[in-house]
Amino acid sequence: MEVIRSIRAMQETVRNLKERAVTIGFVPTMGALHEGHLSLIRRCREENSFVVVSIFVNPIQFGPSEDFQSYPRDLEGDMEKLSALGVDLLFFPDLKEIYPDGYSTYVVVEGLSDKMCGAFRPGHFRGVATVVAKLFNIVKPDRAYFGQKDYQQTVIIKKLVEDLNFDIEIVVCPTVRESDGLAMSSRNLYLNADERKAASSIYRVLKKAEEMVRSGEALERVKEYMENALSTGPLIREVQYASVYHPETLDELTSESLKRSGCREVVLAVALVIGNARLIDNIVVDLTK
Amino acid sequence: MEVIRSIRAMQETVRNLKERAVTIGFVPTMGALHEGHLSLIRRCREENSFVVVSIFVNPIQFGPSEDFQSYPRDLEGDMEKLSALGVDLLFFPDLKEIYPDGYSTYVVVEGLSDKMCGAFRPGHFRGVATVVAKLFNIVKPDRAYFGQKDYQQTVIIKKLVEDLNFDIEIVVCPTVRESDGLAMSSRNLYLNADERKAASSIYRVLKKAEEMVRSGEALERVKEYMENALSTGPLIREVQYASVYHPETLDELTSESLKRSGCREVVLAVALVIGNARLIDNIVVDLTK
Repeated sequence: MEVIRSIRAMQETVRNLKERAVTIGFVPTMGALHEGHLSLIRRCREENSFVVVSIFVNPIQFGPSEDFQSYPRDLEGDMEKLSALGVDLLFFPDLKEIYPDGYSTYVVVEGLSDKMCGAFRPGHFRGVATVVAKLFNIVKPDRAYFGQKDYQQTVIIKKLVEDLNFDIEIVVCPTVRESDGLAMSSRNLYLNADERKAASSIYRVLKKAEEMVRSGEALERVKEYMENALSTGPLIREVQYASVYHPETLDELTSESLKRSGCREVVLAVALVIGNARLIDNIVVDLTK
Repeated sequence: MEVIRSIRAMQETVRNLKERAVTIGFVPTMGALHEGHLSLIRRCREENSFVVVSIFVNPIQFGPSEDFQSYPRDLEGDMEKLSALGVDLLFFPDLKEIYPDGYSTYVVVEGLSDKMCGAFRPGHFRGVATVVAKLFNIVKPDRAYFGQKDYQQTVIIKKLVEDLNFDIEIVVCPTVRESDGLAMSSRNLYLNADERKAASSIYRVLKKAEEMVRSGEALERVKEYMENALSTGPLIREVQYASVYHPETLDELTSESLKRSGCREVVLAVALVIGNARLIDNIVVDLTK
């Protein structure tokens, strides 16, 4: 596996690949790779002749009181995993390579970025959209892979690609879960044993809420259930949101607005804080099945 | 000359060109082509094997009280000129192709966009940066050509390219002038005969200011001269700015701050209103010569 740290070298490599009409698949990550990331990389490996993974902990998507400094980093472990999966190239730039002094250009997907997680993490999705636009210009992939666990992020990136006319296919892959249902996340490492146990309630509540939706329960009741069940759970310090959302606009849905929207899917989504970890999860419910 | 109106067709054409390792040169315009544009296209033709020109009057770079509706349009005349210059492809999308309903992604070059013209045209450079980012993703040029007449625009686009890692060379070409020195501009069409005559003072004032800079006059005096000479000129309704600027930061310079900056160039720049036309012009003064 080749490792490239400079943008210039990366762009030169990409230029050579393009001339050979090679299909480039890309998995952007912040490292501390877990099975969720690896599932994206496997899928990427199957579908493309050249696989690029990036590791970059993107400071501008963290708020001032958030965990940029403490975000888990494990380059050695990550590189072993990437090599084992047959990744062709790791792009691993340092901070100043991506944001040199005087950096001042930002990409904003308006509207979508202020809802759900955006309401609790101002500037977060501006940071995500900006770094993703940069990485797309550096790697020039034919396909890029993202996990459904970060549902709002996938919607925003699809919108970014559509609006700015990136000629890139966005592939969203299913959330990978621990045996008790907890969604894989690098931030699960922040949990102690008791918190880890408590975190398993998130998926149980989502599954029960899915059942309620399928049995025709009013969405207002489903939201009520989710909020109550989570906020009374042990060790859960704060439920930031827990409700039913439109899959594209990310607006909260009531039974009434769902009817009007004509949606064939709804998203059940949750963000909460346990110990030092802010955790998110979601289930997309296909209403036609 | 091929004419393409859809983004999808444009991207397919570009993909085919890239596979043949063709060098794409690109001149984005708003049409109503004059000798200034044609000089960019000639240079582009010399330096690239495939030349793309776009014509798109970009609504989001016009303020609500500005001249989007009345901006001159002359597709037939433009196409004759483009064909005569051996342009390979005209990209001529309609409004909804570039900004479909629900469009919501914007690119902002912070800082630079609020100075000079930006102070008088809020949102203008956000509109410019956004459409240029889109056009770059659609056309994927190796080189793109812009006129020095829009000096601030060239600085912002260079910064956009650098910050977002577009792998594109930005070529800035000299301002083309009428015989009396007036910078060519599609907006000169708004001037009646008297206004047209009055507009020639802009370049005379810039040249005199250049002389003052070269002869070591304090920059504060140069600014004073420019403001006075222009604001007392006949038919000039408003001088929006007229001063000496840092070529990269676009900050206004005094003799003192020039010394501290170590700049080898300064920019003399002017924006003013005559009749219904907002006109801009500039001269870059190389201090080493």
